[in-house]
Amino acid sequence: MKTAVSILAVGLAMLGSCLMTQAQVVEDFKPSELNQAGKEYPMVNSERRVRAQLLAPEATSVKLDIGGVKYDMVKDENGLWTGESDPQDEGFHYYQLNVDGASVPDPGTLFFYGASRWGSAVEVPAADAEIYALKNVPHGVVRQHLYYSKVSGTIRRCFVYTPPCYESNPDARYPVLYLQHGGGEDETGWASQGKANLILDNLIADGKAVPFIIVMDNGTWRPTGPMAPRREGEPWPPAGWADGFKNTLLQDIIPMIDSVYRTIPDNAHRAMAGLSMGGMQTRAITLGNSDVFGYVGMFSGGSISPADIEQNPEFKQNVKLLFIGYGSRELESGRYSMGGDPKTNTEQVNALGIKTSFYVSQDTAHEWQTWRRSFYQFAQQLFK
Amino acid sequence: MKTAVSILAVGLAMLGSCLMTQAQVVEDFKPSELNQAGKEYPMVNSERRVRAQLLAPEATSVKLDIGGVKYDMVKDENGLWTGESDPQDEGFHYYQLNVDGASVPDPGTLFFYGASRWGSAVEVPAADAEIYALKNVPHGVVRQHLYYSKVSGTIRRCFVYTPPCYESNPDARYPVLYLQHGGGEDETGWASQGKANLILDNLIADGKAVPFIIVMDNGTWRPTGPMAPRREGEPWPPAGWADGFKNTLLQDIIPMIDSVYRTIPDNAHRAMAGLSMGGMQTRAITLGNSDVFGYVGMFSGGSISPADIEQNPEFKQNVKLLFIGYGSRELESGRYSMGGDPKTNTEQVNALGIKTSFYVSQDTAHEWQTWRRSFYQFAQQLFK
Repeated sequence: MKTAVSILAVGLAMLGSCLMTQAQVVEDFKPSELNQAGKEYPMVNSERRVRAQLLAPEATSVKLDIGGVKYDMVKDENGLWTGESDPQDEGFHYYQLNVDGASVPDPGTLFFYGASRWGSAVEVPAADAEIYALKNVPHGVVRQHLYYSKVSGTIRRCFVYTPPCYESNPDARYPVLYLQHGGGEDETGWASQGKANLILDNLIADGKAVPFIIVMDNGTWRPTGPMAPRREGEPWPPAGWADGFKNTLLQDIIPMIDSVYRTIPDNAHRAMAGLSMGGMQTRAITLGNSDVFGYVGMFSGGSISPADIEQNPEFKQNVKLLFIGYGSRELESGRYSMGGDPKTNTEQVNALGIKTSFYVSQDTAHEWQTWRRSFYQFAQQLFK
Repeated sequence: MKTAVSILAVGLAMLGSCLMTQAQVVEDFKPSELNQAGKEYPMVNSERRVRAQLLAPEATSVKLDIGGVKYDMVKDENGLWTGESDPQDEGFHYYQLNVDGASVPDPGTLFFYGASRWGSAVEVPAADAEIYALKNVPHGVVRQHLYYSKVSGTIRRCFVYTPPCYESNPDARYPVLYLQHGGGEDETGWASQGKANLILDNLIADGKAVPFIIVMDNGTWRPTGPMAPRREGEPWPPAGWADGFKNTLLQDIIPMIDSVYRTIPDNAHRAMAGLSMGGMQTRAITLGNSDVFGYVGMFSGGSISPADIEQNPEFKQNVKLLFIGYGSRELESGRYSMGGDPKTNTEQVNALGIKTSFYVSQDTAHEWQTWRRSFYQFAQQLFK
C-alpha cells in the first residue's frame, strides 16, 4: 500500500510538472536562422526559449546543453526526442546535444568555432537585429588570406574585409581595424557569428561609418597558450602572455597588410579592438604601441586605468579614442572587470584628457550580442 | 551443459573474430589532417583504414558510418568507443557517427557540406598529396562575395579565387573559370574539400598553369530542385533542369564578375567546369552557349557525344578544349556515364576536330580525390 501511494504521488508530481511546463511554453516556435538549409530544428519562440529535436530511437537519454544548463528532452513513439530551454538572451548562443553521455553537435545547425571546438549554435531574434541583417546594400568582400609568418615559421590564415567601394576605387586608400576574437575562438568568429562584415556594410550604406578595412587573425598563440589555466598565487594573466600574438601582429601581419592592401599606414588610420581575450590583448598591445594604433576598443575585455596611462604616458598624445564596451549582465555580476571597475577607470582616464566612449549593451552577458553591438557603436566612431 | 557449450562456442568465435581483426589492422594510425585543432581522432593508418573514437558512457551502440557501411565500435571501461573501417580510397571522405540510432557529426573533425548536410570528413593521405599541399609559395586569396541576383530576387553568395599576382599587378586582366560543385554540395566545396585554391597556387608557383580567377557559386537551384527524385518512365535529368542556374550564371554572375574583377571578358578567356551534377550543368549550359565559354571541363559528370555536336554545330568552332575526367572505379562500374560511354564519346568528338582531353584518376571512385586530380590536370591546359 505504501508503495502504491508513493507511485501515485510520484505520478501526480510528474503530471503536475508536465502540465506546468506546457503552460509555460508559448507555442510560436520558428526555425533558427543559423539552421542548415531545409532543417526545421532548432527553433526559438517569442519567449526566447530554444527547442531542439533529434532522432535517436535507441537512446535512453538526450539533453539540450545550452548556457551551462542541461535540459532533458522527451522521446516520442517514433524515437524523436524534443525539448526546450529556459529563455535565453537575445542573439547568438553556442550549444550542443548530449546523447547517452556523448556530447555531440546538433546536426541541424551550421557550425561555429567557440569553446575551443566547432559546434552548434542558435540565433535568438533580437529587437535590434536590423543592425546586422543581410540587406540589399552594397556588400564588402571577406577574403581568406594565407601568409607566411616569419615569427612562427608557419603559414597562417587571416580574414580581411574590404569595403564595397574598395574594388571600384582602385586609387583610394583605407584605414584598417585589427579586430580580435575571444579565448577558445578563432579568426573565423567576427565575420561569421560576429557579422562584422554585415554590420559595417549597413553602417557604410547608411552613411554612419567611414569605409575601412578589417583584419581578423588568430590570437591564440601556441605552444605557450595565452590562456593557460590559472595557478594559485600567480598573477593572471601571466606576464608576457600577449607577446606571442603581439610579435606576429607587429612583425608579420601589419607589414603584410600594408604591403598587399591599399591602406593608410599610420597611427591615425589604424585601430585595434577585440572581445574578451582579444580585448585583453588589445590592452596589452596598444598600451606599449600607441604610436602604431590611434584607436583602441575593448569589448568585455577589461579597461585601461590611470595607472596604465602613468606607465605609458605617450598613450595620451597618440590615442584618438578609447572605447570600452560591456554587457549589462557582466557589469551587474562584477565579473570580467580585470584591472578595476571599467566605468570608473574609463571616467578617470577621460578626466586625464583622453577621449573615451563607454558603452553598455542592455540585457546581455559575456556573449556575441554584446560584441556585435559594441562593434556597431565603435565602428561609427572610428577614423573621424 | 548444452548452454555451457554454446557459450564456449560463442566465446571462441568472438575471440577468433577479435584475433583476426587485430591481425588485420596495422597499428600505425595518425590523426587525420581534417581534425579540429588539438583533436587526436579520427585517425588513419597505412592501410587507409579510418579509426574513430567517441566518449559515450551510457550508449549501448556506437557505429562508424563511412562509405555506405556502418562499422560497430567497441566500448572500453571508461565509456570510450573505438572502431575502424575497411580500407578507404586515398583522399577525402564524408562520414558520420551513429549513437544509439542518432546520426550525428563526429565532434573531432572540421565540417564540410556534402550529402545535403554539414558533417564530418576524414582525409586519407594520398601518394600525390603534393599537388594540393599547403606550401610556402605565393597564395591567392579566396573571397566571399555577396551579390544581389535579379533572376531570383535574393542575395546570393559566391567564392572568388584571385591568383597571387592579382593585387600586385593592378593593371593586369585575367581569364576566369566558373567551377561548380556536385549534388548535395554547395559553393564552399571547391575551396574547402576540393582544395582548388591550393592546387592552383602550387601550379602557378611551378609555372605549370597561367594565373586565372576561379568563381565558385551555388548550382543548387531552388525551388524547382535540379536533382528532384527520378520518376519512373520520365527522362533523367528532366528537360530544362539546368535552366535555373544557367539563367543566374549568364544574367547575374558573369556580368557581376566582369564588372567587379579585372577579367578578360571573352570566350577565349572564360571556362566552365564542374563535378558530377556540376559537370552535367556544364554540359547543359556550354553546349548552347559556346560563344560564352571557350573551355569546358566535366569531372564525373557525363560527356559530350557526336549527337550533341550535331545539335550545336557552333561548339566545334568555339571550344578550344573539352576535358572529361573520371575515377577508374566509376568507369569499371559503368555508373555515371550519362549519355553513353565517356571515353568513346570523347574519342568520337575528337575525331570531329575538337581538341579533347580524357583523364582517368587511378583507383578512385565518385569522390573528391577524382575531382582534385581532374582539376589539377584541367587547370594546366586552360587558357594556353
